Amino acid sequence: MAGARGFERGFIADVLAPLASDPVARGLTDDAAVWTPPLGRDLVFTHDVLAAGVHFLGQDPPGDIAWKLLAVNLSDLAAMAAQPVGVLMGLGLSAAQDEAWRADFAAGLGRALVHFGVALWGGDTVTGLDRAVIGLTAIGTLLPGAATGRDGARPGDGLYVSGTIGDAGLGLAMAQGTLKAETALLKRYRLPMPRVALGRVLAGCATACMDVSDGLLIDAQRLAAASGVAIEIDLAAMPVSDAARRIAGDDDAGRLRLATSGDDYELLFTAPPGFDADAAALSGKVAVTRIGTVSAGMGLHLTGQAGPIALPARLGWEH
Amino acid sequence: MAGARGFERGFIADVLAPLASDPVARGLTDDAAVWTPPLGRDLVFTHDVLAAGVHFLGQDPPGDIAWKLLAVNLSDLAAMAAQPVGVLMGLGLSAAQDEAWRADFAAGLGRALVHFGVALWGGDTVTGLDRAVIGLTAIGTLLPGAATGRDGARPGDGLYVSGTIGDAGLGLAMAQGTLKAETALLKRYRLPMPRVALGRVLAGCATACMDVSDGLLIDAQRLAAASGVAIEIDLAAMPVSDAARRIAGDDDAGRLRLATSGDDYELLFTAPPGFDADAAALSGKVAVTRIGTVSAGMGLHLTGQAGPIALPARLGWEH
Repeated sequence: MAGARGFERGFIADVLAPLASDPVARGLTDDAAVWTPPLGRDLVFTHDVLAAGVHFLGQDPPGDIAWKLLAVNLSDLAAMAAQPVGVLMGLGLSAAQDEAWRADFAAGLGRALVHFGVALWGGDTVTGLDRAVIGLTAIGTLLPGAATGRDGARPGDGLYVSGTIGDAGLGLAMAQGTLKAETALLKRYRLPMPRVALGRVLAGCATACMDVSDGLLIDAQRLAAASGVAIEIDLAAMPVSDAARRIAGDDDAGRLRLATSGDDYELLFTAPPGFDADAAALSGKVAVTRIGTVSAGMGLHLTGQAGPIALPARLGWEH
Repeated sequence: MAGARGFERGFIADVLAPLASDPVARGLTDDAAVWTPPLGRDLVFTHDVLAAGVHFLGQDPPGDIAWKLLAVNLSDLAAMAAQPVGVLMGLGLSAAQDEAWRADFAAGLGRALVHFGVALWGGDTVTGLDRAVIGLTAIGTLLPGAATGRDGARPGDGLYVSGTIGDAGLGLAMAQGTLKAETALLKRYRLPMPRVALGRVLAGCATACMDVSDGLLIDAQRLAAASGVAIEIDLAAMPVSDAARRIAGDDDAGRLRLATSGDDYELLFTAPPGFDADAAALSGKVAVTRIGTVSAGMGLHLTGQAGPIALPARLGWEH
């Protein structure tokens, strides 16, 4: 943890170092981590940043923020079919992240690291910022050539998604106070569950894969563009939880709302005819639902309750 | 570059993606980077964060900030004797980083990547922050067992440092306007030069190594503590540039000022009797100077012009 200017060395030694028990981390006292990679594996790297007021809310429980930080990065690894191994964290904090906040954050991070079997290898800390800005680099392993990119979808493939769509978007509205809070949906927003096991199952059979972070429709549109194909989604087939159906309604408008909210962190993927979704769901420990078809052409096309419908003006979190 | 919420996708595609031409980066369009590591090498990881107002000044040239971001991370790799290979960047920006700023930053990053022979593999972007907060993860390779940690210094070793000490501290004072600006010293603050070649030379012969980022004295104290030895520094032997000598003075007080300022990014290391400093300097492409001795005991001890002197109250940038 070199360069931790402005931060208490005690926090690193007393709170973070106990989380970094892997010898690779060298007790967080050296300039860098040293790791002997496994033979015969490719390595996968991702780095996502969470900022207060952008990706989480200031009043979110600190332990949940730590979970989400790890989960969104592991979701990227899952989308590439990788097995997560280690992480480095850049922890930028403001005065609002007091000692109690930091302790809760570290405890949550420790639980998440244990849950996902991932080691904290190093990082950096800085205080005196105006808001918390926390980056994480996650490193995973992969059999050579097994990476599932976004560009492999082929006409005739089916389009599949894991879990249920739209719960986290409702959870965000609840966290913001614009919807009456329900614990299960709040949890879907604050504690996303990266589909690591499913991602590894898909290494052998998916033609393209990505995680749904900005909204099902916008992410499906990106997958179609990357693969140079058309994608047709049957809105009625989109998997929706009972709670989400009750709140959003089960008509086209309600389903479009769910399909354009973000933070699902489910896997969206394509697979050729003959793909056994039930077997993948069993091994991947999460439901897998066919929601559409890949065809020659380009762009995203939607089918509603009474046939084709126009794309909504907003497909998700646009950048 | 998944999760780039709130940022223009065009900036990633038009400005950052051209810097990420290594196939490992997959055009910055996938969820993660995929790399086949070289056989027979350990991997080294570091992550440092630079925040506006903390590690650089808001008015610093954006290209220089990009250089510094890369340089401080490569300095950590150099301290472990690693060869840098790739980086992932977490770019958090405020409204002050307008399009011109971003273009200058990207151009500077591109120059630095080419200069050091390092590839941009991925990362994340977020805007809407109150100030720029930029993290970088650097990945390097190393012969197994060759890492030079901080804990290997042995009684009888000599203590050495590369380059000159204190220039960057004076450059910081110039950037802050408290000293009359001189280009050469400003450059030492804004464009640190990681000692990558020297670090690799030291893999075979240094017993301990770290980079000097917080001040020579505080970093030497840390090396002594990590190794469980005493370190004695002869202030008069500390290498100082002509400009720094002229400004700070050549007495104990002036040299203590230089030895307690930060941002040198030189390598501080120990080596046993018989170490050929001239040969290391030649291969490492930077001056190497013996400034002290390792002995049994503990703590940092200073010799001034007239014999032993007390440690100053402040040894450097304390955390």
